[in-house]
This record gives sequence, C-alpha cells and structure tokens, in this order.
Amino acid sequence: MTPSPHASAAQDPALIELESGVRSYSRSWPVVFDRAVGSRLYDTAGRGYLDFFAGAGALNYGHNPSELKRALIEYLSDDRVMHSLDMFTAARNDFISEFRTRILEPRGLDHRLLFPGPGGTNAVEAALKIARKATGRTNVLSFTNAFHGMTLGALAVTGNALKRGGAGIPLTGAVPMPYDGYADGGDFALLERLLADPGSGLDAPAAVIVETLQGEGGLNPARVEWLQRLAELCREHGIVLIVDDVQMGCGRTGSFFSFEEAGIVPDIVCLSKSISGYGIPMALTLVRPELDVFAPGEHNGTFRGVSAGFATAAEAIRQYWSDDTLAADVRRKGERTGVRLAAIAEAHPVIAVRAKGRGLARGIEMSGGEIADAVCAEAFEHGMLVETSGPRGEVVKLLPALTISDAELDEGLDILERAVAAVAGRTLARATASTEPEREEQPA
Amino acid sequence: MTPSPHASAAQDPALIELESGVRSYSRSWPVVFDRAVGSRLYDTAGRGYLDFFAGAGALNYGHNPSELKRALIEYLSDDRVMHSLDMFTAARNDFISEFRTRILEPRGLDHRLLFPGPGGTNAVEAALKIARKATGRTNVLSFTNAFHGMTLGALAVTGNALKRGGAGIPLTGAVPMPYDGYADGGDFALLERLLADPGSGLDAPAAVIVETLQGEGGLNPARVEWLQRLAELCREHGIVLIVDDVQMGCGRTGSFFSFEEAGIVPDIVCLSKSISGYGIPMALTLVRPELDVFAPGEHNGTFRGVSAGFATAAEAIRQYWSDDTLAADVRRKGERTGVRLAAIAEAHPVIAVRAKGRGLARGIEMSGGEIADAVCAEAFEHGMLVETSGPRGEVVKLLPALTISDAELDEGLDILERAVAAVAGRTLARATASTEPEREEQPA
Amino acid sequence: MTPSPHASAAQDPALIELESGVRSYSRSWPVVFDRAVGSRLYDTAGRGYLDFFAGAGALNYGHNPSELKRALIEYLSDDRVMHSLDMFTAARNDFISEFRTRILEPRGLDHRLLFPGPGGTNAVEAALKIARKATGRTNVLSFTNAFHGMTLGALAVTGNALKRGGAGIPLTGAVPMPYDGYADGGDFALLERLLADPGSGLDAPAAVIVETLQGEGGLNPARVEWLQRLAELCREHGIVLIVDDVQMGCGRTGSFFSFEEAGIVPDIVCLSKSISGYGIPMALTLVRPELDVFAPGEHNGTFRGVSAGFATAAEAIRQYWSDDTLAADVRRKGERTGVRLAAIAEAHPVIAVRAKGRGLARGIEMSGGEIADAVCAEAFEHGMLVETSGPRGEVVKLLPALTISDAELDEGLDILERAVAAVAGRTLARATASTEPEREEQPA
Amino acid sequence: MTPSPHASAAQDPALIELESGVRSYSRSWPVVFDRAVGSRLYDTAGRGYLDFFAGAGALNYGHNPSELKRALIEYLSDDRVMHSLDMFTAARNDFISEFRTRILEPRGLDHRLLFPGPGGTNAVEAALKIARKATGRTNVLSFTNAFHGMTLGALAVTGNALKRGGAGIPLTGAVPMPYDGYADGGDFALLERLLADPGSGLDAPAAVIVETLQGEGGLNPARVEWLQRLAELCREHGIVLIVDDVQMGCGRTGSFFSFEEAGIVPDIVCLSKSISGYGIPMALTLVRPELDVFAPGEHNGTFRGVSAGFATAAEAIRQYWSDDTLAADVRRKGERTGVRLAAIAEAHPVIAVRAKGRGLARGIEMSGGEIADAVCAEAFEHGMLVETSGPRGEVVKLLPALTISDAELDEGLDILERAVAAVAGRTLARATASTEPEREEQPA
Repeated sequence: MTPSPHASAAQDPALIELESGVRSYSRSWPVVFDRAVGSRLYDTAGRGYLDFFAGAGALNYGHNPSELKRALIEYLSDDRVMHSLDMFTAARNDFISEFRTRILEPRGLDHRLLFPGPGGTNAVEAALKIARKATGRTNVLSFTNAFHGMTLGALAVTGNALKRGGAGIPLTGAVPMPYDGYADGGDFALLERLLADPGSGLDAPAAVIVETLQGEGGLNPARVEWLQRLAELCREHGIVLIVDDVQMGCGRTGSFFSFEEAGIVPDIVCLSKSISGYGIPMALTLVRPELDVFAPGEHNGTFRGVSAGFATAAEAIRQYWSDDTLAADVRRKGERTGVRLAAIAEAHPVIAVRAKGRGLARGIEMSGGEIADAVCAEAFEHGMLVETSGPRGEVVKLLPALTISDAELDEGLDILERAVAAVAGRTLARATASTEPEREEQPA
Repeated sequence: MTPSPHASAAQDPALIELESGVRSYSRSWPVVFDRAVGSRLYDTAGRGYLDFFAGAGALNYGHNPSELKRALIEYLSDDRVMHSLDMFTAARNDFISEFRTRILEPRGLDHRLLFPGPGGTNAVEAALKIARKATGRTNVLSFTNAFHGMTLGALAVTGNALKRGGAGIPLTGAVPMPYDGYADGGDFALLERLLADPGSGLDAPAAVIVETLQGEGGLNPARVEWLQRLAELCREHGIVLIVDDVQMGCGRTGSFFSFEEAGIVPDIVCLSKSISGYGIPMALTLVRPELDVFAPGEHNGTFRGVSAGFATAAEAIRQYWSDDTLAADVRRKGERTGVRLAAIAEAHPVIAVRAKGRGLARGIEMSGGEIADAVCAEAFEHGMLVETSGPRGEVVKLLPALTISDAELDEGLDILERAVAAVAGRTLARATASTEPEREEQPA
Repeated sequence: MTPSPHASAAQDPALIELESGVRSYSRSWPVVFDRAVGSRLYDTAGRGYLDFFAGAGALNYGHNPSELKRALIEYLSDDRVMHSLDMFTAARNDFISEFRTRILEPRGLDHRLLFPGPGGTNAVEAALKIARKATGRTNVLSFTNAFHGMTLGALAVTGNALKRGGAGIPLTGAVPMPYDGYADGGDFALLERLLADPGSGLDAPAAVIVETLQGEGGLNPARVEWLQRLAELCREHGIVLIVDDVQMGCGRTGSFFSFEEAGIVPDIVCLSKSISGYGIPMALTLVRPELDVFAPGEHNGTFRGVSAGFATAAEAIRQYWSDDTLAADVRRKGERTGVRLAAIAEAHPVIAVRAKGRGLARGIEMSGGEIADAVCAEAFEHGMLVETSGPRGEVVKLLPALTISDAELDEGLDILERAVAAVAGRTLARATASTEPEREEQPA
Repeated sequence: MTPSPHASAAQDPALIELESGVRSYSRSWPVVFDRAVGSRLYDTAGRGYLDFFAGAGALNYGHNPSELKRALIEYLSDDRVMHSLDMFTAARNDFISEFRTRILEPRGLDHRLLFPGPGGTNAVEAALKIARKATGRTNVLSFTNAFHGMTLGALAVTGNALKRGGAGIPLTGAVPMPYDGYADGGDFALLERLLADPGSGLDAPAAVIVETLQGEGGLNPARVEWLQRLAELCREHGIVLIVDDVQMGCGRTGSFFSFEEAGIVPDIVCLSKSISGYGIPMALTLVRPELDVFAPGEHNGTFRGVSAGFATAAEAIRQYWSDDTLAADVRRKGERTGVRLAAIAEAHPVIAVRAKGRGLARGIEMSGGEIADAVCAEAFEHGMLVETSGPRGEVVKLLPALTISDAELDEGLDILERAVAAVAGRTLARATASTEPEREEQPA
C-alpha cells in the first residue's frame, strides 16, 4: 500500500498514548486538523476536507462564520465579561431579547429560558428533573434508538447498549417505547393501552422525551401525525412532553425548531449544539411557565451563562433567523439531497437499503455497519468528512452546514456517490470471488 | 430609603420574567454587568465591583487576562478550528503537550486525559462511570457537604438537600460518609470498620469521591493525614479514589492540584472551571492508565474538545505554571488573607464563628445564613462581590482571583471588615433593643 | 331493606377496628367463617357457602380433604418435628421423594428443589435473585397484568397500579411487555426487535417471568404457540425463563404444571398456594441444575421447611398425582364450565363480554368492575363465594376446588347464571329508566 | 476416624442431589431428624439432641408444646377452616381478641394488626412500604449487622454481604448506620448531625428499622438509653420507628416485646417466628393507627390469615402470656446463662472473647468463625444443637426454648463448656506444635 497522503498531518503517537482510549472520531479521521472556514476543514499539512459532519450538528452555520467571528472578536477586544454564571449581563440580555423577539414570539411560544449547563446532556438532565419534580412521578418514556446524553439521567433515556453499559450501574427510571415505524404500524396502539390500563405495569410517566428525527439513532424520522398523537397522549395523561432538539433544532430540519412542521408545542425543549452558532459550549432548556418549578439555585452549574456563547448566539439569531431565508434554503437543499441519496441507494441495492432523513439531516442506510464504515473511509480518502450513525453504525449520516453552497453540496454528494459505488464494486467482487473459489486457484 | 446607586444598571423586568426562577446570583447582585478586567467587573452604568468570587472559581487568573485574550483573539482571527469533538487538532495537541510537560510530568503523574464534556459535572460523571465499570461495583462513597454537580450521577454524591430534591427521583448508588472533622475525631474509625466488616451493610465501594477542601460545603479543609489515610484505605480495599478538583484545582490552594500538599496520587482527578483560564466551558478527567476501561465512543459528547478552551488553557499553563511563582504567591496571599480573616472573626464574636479555608479559598463562618447574607449584601453596597456557601449559607466565601494584587486584596479585606463590623453593630443594636423593651416604651 | 340473613355471623365491630384497613375479602363477604369441608365453608351461624374461590387457588383439593387431614393429625399426634428450617427431616425426605418420583421424573424434569420461604412471593423473589446472579444482568421482563407478589422484588414485576403504588418507592429492574393478545397480534414482533437491536434501550434481560394463564390479571390465557415462541426467544438470548405457577400450578389447568400443555421446560418454576394441599403456607422454587448458583445460606429464611406442609404435601401427591385421574377430571369439568360460562355470557350481552380461562380457572369478563362486583354480591346472597379479578376487577373469577363434584359445580354455575341474569335485569331496567325520563314524569 | 454415631440417621445422597446447594443447616447437622418434644429433637435412629437453637427463635415454647398440640389437633379434627386469606374467621377473631386483651392493652398499645404474609420478611416488607407511603420519603436507615429478611426490600436493610450479593442487583433505598457500640461511643453524634444538616447528603428518612438485640448479627444488645434516644430522634425528625421483633419478640428477651425494657413505643412492630408458637408460618405487622395508610387490598397475599397459626397462637398467648410467670423465668434463666457463659469465656481467653446477649438470646464471641464452628461441631458430637451467628460466624449463639428446664439448661451449658475446653485445648496444642517444630523432629 502506498503511503497515506495525510502522512504529514499524522498525529504524534506519544500524544495518542496520553489520551484515553475512549476517543472515537480521531480513529476515523487520523489527521490533525487546524483551520476551518465554512464547509471546509484543513489539516496541519494544509489539505482541505469537505465537512458533511458539521460538528455532529454543532456547526449549522459552518465553521467560523464571518459575522459571528467579528462579533466574538469585538466582544473579546472590548473586555466584555466572559464568565458570569447566572448573573445579569448585557450579552445575556441581548441574547434573551433576540431569542424572545425572533424565535419565541413569532412562534407563539411563552416558554421560559433556563440555562442548565453548557452541554446538551445538561439541558436534558434539567428537563427530566423538572418533569419529575413537577409531576411527582418518576418514570420517563424514551424511544428505541434515542440519544440524549452521557450523564446518568440522560443515559437512562438513551438507547445505545454500548453507551448504557458504560454507566457501570443499572439505569433506572425509564422505559423504552417503539419509535415511529419501529416493529409496528406506528399507531401508539400499545402505548395507549399501557397508559389506560391500571394493570399494565407501566408506571404513570412524568415525561416522554422524544427527538422528532433521530440523529444518532440512524436518521429515523417521525411522521407529523405520530408526533401529534404523541402530544395528545401526553396531554390526556398529564405527561410532560420533552422534545430534545439538541441536534435537530436551530434549523437543521428546515425550521428553527424541528417540531414546527408537526404543529405541536412541547412542554419542554432542549437546545444546545448549534445554539451558540460558533461551536462554543452552550445549552438552553425551554420550559412552559407552569412547569418552572425549580426554587432559586435548585439546579445550578458553573457554565450556565457562557458570555462568548451569548455574543455569537445573539448574532446568529440576527443573521439567520430574522426571516425565513435560511430555513427555506435548508428545505430546498434538503429535498435536493434526498433525491440524490435515493438515487444513489437505488443504484446500489447490493449495499444500500434506502435514503433516510429530513431537511439537511440525511443519510443512506447501508446493509451493515462495516459497509457504512467503508463508504465513510472511502469518502475520507477523497477529502470528505462524513460519519455513520444507527444502532449498528449502518447509516451513512450527512449533516452538512446549513449554509453549504449548492456547489459544495453537489461536490459532497458526488464524492459520496463514487464512494458508494467503489464499496459496492468491491463487495460484489468479493462475493463473486467467494462463490467461485476454484477458478482462482486454477493453475495458469 | 434613598434610591439605589445601581439603578441605572438595573435589569429590565420583562427580561426577568422570560427567565426561569431557578436563577440565583442575579438575586444577590441585581445589576447588569458588562465589562471585566482582572479583579474588577463593571456594570452597564460603568460602576466597578471588586470581584472576590471569580466565577465561583472559574476565573483563577482573573477576568480576561491579557496574554490569554491575545492568544484567543489570534486563534479566532486565524480561523483556527473552533469545534472538533474528539478529532485531533493542533490546538488540542498543544494543550495536551503543555499539560504533560508542565503539569503531569513534573508531578510524576502518568494519568491519561479524557475529555468528558464541557462542565465539571461531566468530568464527575465520567469518573463515576469509569470507577463502576472498572471495579464491577456500584456503590460510591461521598462525603457530607460535598458538591459534585447537578446531573443525576453527580447529584447522587452531592450533599445539599435542596439540590438533591430537585432530582424528583430517589438518588441511588451513593452513601455519604463524615468528612474530616465532621461529628467525630476524623480518624476513619467508622469507615474502616464498615469496610472491613462483612456484615456492615455497606456494599463494597467502587469509588470514594472527595474534595480536599470543600468549597460549596463551606470551605471545610481536610487535613493532610486524613487524605493520606483515605488514600490508604482506598488502596487496601480496591476502591478507586476520585479527587474532584473542579473548584480547588488549577492553583486555588497554592499548588496546581489541591492534593499535592498531601502527597497522594488519586486514581482519577476531575478538572474544569479554571482549566481554560478564560471562563470558557471545558473539563478534563484524568485517569490512571489501568483504569482507562472505556471502549472507543463508550462515553461521548459534542463539546469534548473545546478548541477555544484549548487555546487559552495551553497559554494559561505556559503563563502561570512554568514555574512556582504563581503558586508561591497564592500561598503567601492565602496566609495573609487567613490572618486578616481570623482577626475579623475574633473581633466580632457576636456574629462570626471562625475563619476557614486554605490557599486563596477562604471564608468566615458566621453565626447563621442570614448574617452571612447581610455581610455579603453590605459588601456589595460597597462595591464588592462576595458570596456565601455552606449547608445553611452561613459561610462568607472568598475566592479572589489568584492574580489579585496585594492592594486589591487589602481593599477587599477592608471592605469585608467594615461589612462584618456594620452587621455586628446592627445585630448588637437589635439584641439590646429587644432585651430592654420597657425603656423604649417609657413616656417622656 | 330487610336485615341480612348473615346477621348472626356478623363481625364484632370492635375487632374490625383493631385491624388494618388493608383487609379486603372480609369487605365482600362480611360474615365470620368457622368450619369448612370440601367445597363448602360454614359461618359461625352454621350457614353453608359454596366455595368457588378456594383460597385464591390455595385449596385445589378443597377444604380439609380427609386423607390429608388424617395424615396431618397423625403427624401431629406422633410429635413429629414441626419446624426445622432446612435441616433434613423424615417428612421433608418423604416430600422430596414423592415430588421426584411422581412429579419431576414422569415429566422428564431434572430441576432442583429450593425452599425459599413460605409464600408465593418468596418463591418469586428467590427466582429473580437466582436469574440475576446467574446471568450477571439485572433487567427482568414481566407482562402486562401480571401478578407475582407484594415484596419489593416481586412487586416490581407485578402490573397492578394500586399495588405498585403501595411500595412508596419507584420499582426498578423490570419492564412490562404485552402479554399474549395485548394490543397486538401476540407475535412478539416488538420484543424480538427490542432484543435484537443494540440501540433499543432495552437492557439485556436476566429473566422473563410469566404466568401461562393470568389469574389476578383477569384469567387471560396465553396460547401454546405464544409460550413456545417465548421459550425459544429466551433460549436465543440467554434469558432465564421463569414460570410463576403459584396460582395455576398443582393441577389448576388440567395438568400438574400449567406449562405442560405447551411442552416447554422453564428454567425456573415457582410453586406455592396448593402445594401443601391443606392451606398451610409452603413454597417451592424449582431450578435447573446449571442455575443453582446460590452459595450455602446465600438465601435463607425461617420457614423454608414447613414440616406440617411436607406431611400434607407428600400425601396430596400420593392421593392426587399417582395417575392422571384428577387431571383428566379437571379438564373435563373445565370444558363443561367453559361451555356454561360462554352460554351465560352470550345470554347477557348487556353486561357480559365473554367467557375466559382454561382448566378450572375460568371467568366471565363483565362490562365493568361494578357489574362484576354486583354479580359476586348477588351470588353471595345466594350462598356462593366467588370473586373478581382483572385490572379493573371486571372479571368474575371461578376457581372451584379441583375435587368439586359435578353436582356442586352445576349448583354454582346455576347460582352464577341467576346472579348474572339478575344484575343484567337491573342494569337494563336502569338503562331504560334513564333513557326514557319523560315518560316517568308524564302525568297519568 | 471411627464411624460417626449418626450413621444410621444419615441422609440419602440421592435426595441431597435433588436439592439446591443453598441449604445450610443440614451441613452442620448432617442427620435426618424426625420427632421432637420440648427441648429435644430425635433423629430417625432415635438419638436425642438437646436443642439450643429452637428453630432460630421460632420455637420459643419448645417443640410441640402439649397444650398447643391439643388445641391444633382439636382444631383440625373439627374441620375448622384452615385457609381463609383475610376473611373473618372464628379462629382469627379468637387470636385478635387474645392479642388485644393480653398483649396490647396491658402494655398500653393501640397498634392495628396487619397480616402481611406468613414470614418475617413479609412483615418487614409491609412495614417499609407503609413507612414510605405514609411519609412520602424513600430512604430507610438500617444498622450495621442487621438482619431483616431475604426479599428485595428487606434485604436492602440487611447487613450481611453474602446475602446482599445474592440479590444480583444493587440494593437501594437504605443506608446503614452504626449500631450501639459500633466503632463509636454509641451516642448518635454522627446520626444527629447528619439528620440536622441540610448538606449532609443523607436524604430525610422515611423510617429507621432496628432490632433491640441483633440475633443474626452476633447477639449485639442495644442499651436502653440508646434505644430511647433513637426513638426521640425519630420523633424529632418525623421518622417512622420500626422495631423488627421477629426473632427477639414473643418473650425471647424476658418480656413479650423486646423493646419493653427501654420503655419506647415503636410506630411499627414486626412479629413472626414464635408468634404461632408451634412452628407454623405466621407473621404480623403492628401499625399505629395514624400510619395505617394502605387502601383495601393495596398489600395482599395468599397466606395472610393462617388459621392453624391463629389456633396455636391464641392458645400460646393464653398459656404463656396471661401473667408474668414465663417472662420472669426467662429473665432468671437468662441471668444464669449469662453468668455461666461469662465464666466459660474467661476460662478460655485463647479462643473466647466475651459473653454477649440478653434474656435467653445469649452467646459467646469466639476469636473467629472457624473456632466457633469447631465449638458447635464439638457440641453436636455430644448431642447438642447450637449454631453460630455474627458477620464472620464468630459467635456461638444460644437460643434455647424459653420453657427449657433448669436441668436441661445446665446440661446444655455443661456440654458447651466441655466443647469450648476441647477446642481451646486443640488450639493450644496446635499453637505449641507450630512454635516448637524442632523438638518434634528430634530423634528419640
């Protein structure tokens, strides 16, 4: 095998040894990255990579968008306060005002903002605590293949067995229910019966936590009517409806919140990832006023008010959410991507099962995790970052920046198409070889 | 009552209503802050406040230290990558290298770095998961008045009843033990017996999690010999020793790690707060190689590699930890602070119980939470930010920046002295009034 | 209303007050019972009651069967040992020998006998502990409307919400699955998917615990093919299959074990209720040799070896299980009962939904719990004891002694038929009255 | 070695193999017992054994006491009802009346009777459920070396690590506290602080469950003042005080309830073992009226009303608790036993540590579990049954029938004295041998 073209950007083995073996992305992309603009990352050797991963959804506006960069540098240059817990600050006020005016009010939402800690898992933990405290119930319904975080409360509502096993302790207080289309007609027949039946053994739930489109779970979309019925069921049974919009919020599906299409109003919404717009850790839990049950300080944390994040987040809202331009563009590019992916999947039935997803959260389900890995590795060889998801890593998952240009989008889809074709070709060749072993061994 | 001097920096009531009632610091200091440099915060009206709070320990090097600011602006200006999960990046490598060279190696530590998510609670959750997975045990010993975080796993090892109640679900998997000096001679007689006795009912612990000096718990210091014996007990019983250095690490007690004075080597160390040095959310779990049991991706999270944090953290290590200068200065200023606080406490026995703490984590235990609140409110009126801690909020807690100048330190201690005197005076006056009611009511 | 005919056997109110309000059967049948033979109970006034309840299945051979009575009195008269924990005794040996020869060996079973404590819930607790210890897993799958006992482990796998609520603590370690015919096609499509999917969020189960016919749950029978597929699923996934035969074992369904018809071999079987044959508390957990993982004394209890129970149990096995006579008779009487109940249900569609059950565990599902209560009360007025079951108490449940004569069986079914007719008549009358209010109010 | 004298009463190996390996007492006493009267058990070969074990406290009135035997045979002969769940029966009424008149009323107790299931663990589970439901709290304080039962709720408050491990799942909802004299001055200094401190991390307890004298835990007595202070603490903090009198009730310590000496009134009392007086499984939970919070049927079970037990229990109360005769005799014999045990312990300091216990629950703590086993084995060789207890099985535990004659008591103490002497002799011989190895090897 020829030397890797990325050799000059390879990682120092001594540094690898200093780090926990839990690292994962650096195993797929073993180069050292350094600079990044828009949809391109550059390694230390200067080679560019087309980014269809976007920080697992944390970079919806691409790398280092210039207006946000300018705002952040200005903020820093002026010695504005950088760390302030939940004290009032001008930056915080600016963010809250913008969020109210451009996000909440236009959507008729009256949720209160709770800053729960800087990551998505903190937003989820706060949501679960509130739902349990407010209802006096402890059970939470989650869904198959859900992903909500790695801290103990959030992990209990996460589906992945490897990650659950990492807890080292039985995870309690949650029961997984089939997500839309999972092993049934997606009609809630079972859940309705369980909830209505005092002998079902399903303890009355404090909350249901749901992603409208499961990202880590394999880009499984829930239908609008399924979400609507779920919201109704919650209302009927006094269950707090939590939408985890950490990955699918901030425009990813073609609207600011992913649940807008369904016309539902969750009781609690979890946001993080792209909320700061600049890759800065920040999270937000939106809570209906009647559920705002925490006493002062009952939930706290050092990084609840990330001022740098407020600065870029406020600017991001102004830039991208003053009108429907970005959202409409996401829907358009999402459609286009969906069509291309469907065509790729159809063209390679040997390894591809089907295209999946919504908005700019798209993917192709492959016939298995190894095939999906091979496609991603092939794409990486051609300068593109794309990752897998799904319970067996069987879905090639595309999360390009929402601001990606049409040309870049096409470039990425072209690389992906070639990568799928290459893997399909190799797979077919192997299959042929293994069914015709004698010929190969024949003497010349 | 005359109008408050802070009126022009008062918060907009409409914004207050938008926010969850869980907010707390903004209740003590109801002004809108905006700028900050070193040990001074400024409100939107331009008034300066001497900061003896330092972001609850997240700003050990003060607000916006110039070298870090320069490094961060440069990092941003060059479009270096801002968000990269656990991918290799040049900034990450720089941090890991500096941390190895200037922190780990000089102290003879061979721990691996695990980036667990951006907050202290994430560092703790990762530590607990590892300890449980590695030992196959589930029970964890925590200590009275411990504080480790708000997510479900960390909350189970946190002492505060208000915060525990916020979970809305019984917290399991942890048993609180008396901290050094708590209701006993601090000799582990009980714990030793419980651990050695197969009939004690104390399940063999996976881990002990301890702060060497309890910040939120009321600035309770553990003696060196207590920590040493605790470390021995852990070794004897195969228990993973976790030191939560989130608040007391990064130099707060006069050495980079707070456990250095005791000469112990924890199996796992949790860092966050001041590790980035610039108020940027970042956390780190240090793990002995033999405990590095997570499979790739078994613990993950979006904000594990905060590049802006790496940039400032690496610079902070270079600036402050290339030699012992800062640490020695902390010890010197800490001593000086301790002497002053002891004198203040002794001068006002009516309301002050005693000075507490170590390094630049210092405090005065007052006779009750209301007294402590009154002292902090008085200090705020004189332009100083200082907060309470302890189970009943009875400890006035001083966490000045480690880089505070001697003049600022004196200024703060002077304000505090006057505040204590004022509250003591009012308390005495009220006491006198209530014990001599007849005279007041006598007709002229 | 005329005085109750049972007045002379009424309970002393002073004694009622001495007792906890948790009592329940004495609310349905508020007379003081005293003597009992076969299928008849007599109150203190000498009035007889035809017993179609049989101690909730603890009196499969009727009250005080003469051969067992003789054996027990002889045992007592000879001063044979009455209490001996798990020491070897002649009575115990006799029971074990008979159980081996007449129960286990003819059915090709090699399970070991574990005496877990005297009640059914103890048998279940022992089973769950073994399954968890043997597999190293903690999760247990139970079924909707299951009933397994009132102690904390057994309660966690029990469906009834009232009873679960009595725990006062969240019940953990179990997930309810739909029982055969519950809200689906009964084809395990969901469970199979959940078990096979590493992202389902269903932790790998230690055990499945199942009743082949749910007694308390409302006489819901599982089909043979459903039980077979369940057994297969357990084998495929390394799950311990526990059959709780506490109520349905000892011949109730027409074979000694209720699972014989399905041809499955559970890993663990729980027996109690009728195992002693004389109403004496006794329980038994049968465990496959490879699952017999408890160390000596790891599970213990004072009443593991109930000698009086051994004496009557051994005699019961000799009397009733030396050949198929009783079992065949149960099947015959069960069929006959089923036919009668179906006819009754069909004749009164206003209040009856359908006949249910298998063997001599039979019932009629009524249109609601109040209707079923009314039928039972009507039957009691006519000297018959019969109770309700089901999540809403909507099933009139018949558990006559297996030894009931054909004449008594007919007598009971006749009383029931009249009771249903009477309640149906009253219901119709009320319905007519309420839908035709005008006529009543019309002037003559 | 000569053949064992018990050979003709040896167990059939084929039967041993049929049984679970969890069996324990039959390992210490590998003979088959058959008959029993008073303080003597007889094996199938007719050999008599002096019983200082008394069914682990279930046979306080000895084996088959004649008045109870007569009452039971009469009950059976008259075809009185044997099984009746919680229906009213004449036998049940008789028991309740006697218990009220001769037990509760003379002691000024107004507790209600709840029949929880037939074993001690059921009485404990019911108590814990009530305490949790009534207080709305979930945490329960237990004590080091406590024993309360093997079902999941009771096991969580039991100390023994082997037994706890049998659960196969983490035991939650309980925290062990040091029992009187355990590693401290027995002054509750720690517990008081933990309860009063809102930062202690000890969740407000629903209940404290305590044995006044720990039987299985090694015959550890609690002092009167310790119990009184515990009762006060419970009152002060709204904690339900549960006394588990399963082993120490029914006269074992010299009064009907073991807590009478301390003059405390528990909120809940658990009884079982000797309550029936004849080795018949029966249990009772006594509950203060204000804690009688269960709804009808919220806690149920098949063997709540054991009629045979009611018959013998009522008779036992009449026979033994109509006056203070038995109790006074227990105190007298207890004193006498204590004096003898102290003398034995003092005479053999090589292997004996000290005499322990109260009433007729007595023991000698030996230097280790193997020594204690050797003493019991030696006693068994001389025809006496006596067992060990304590966390390491280091306490030789004497629980003779309360009705034991002075001659039998002396006989047993004499055997024990010789057994201790024999083991001490062998131990000394071995010690001498191992320290003087050369002499033995010297040629003659």
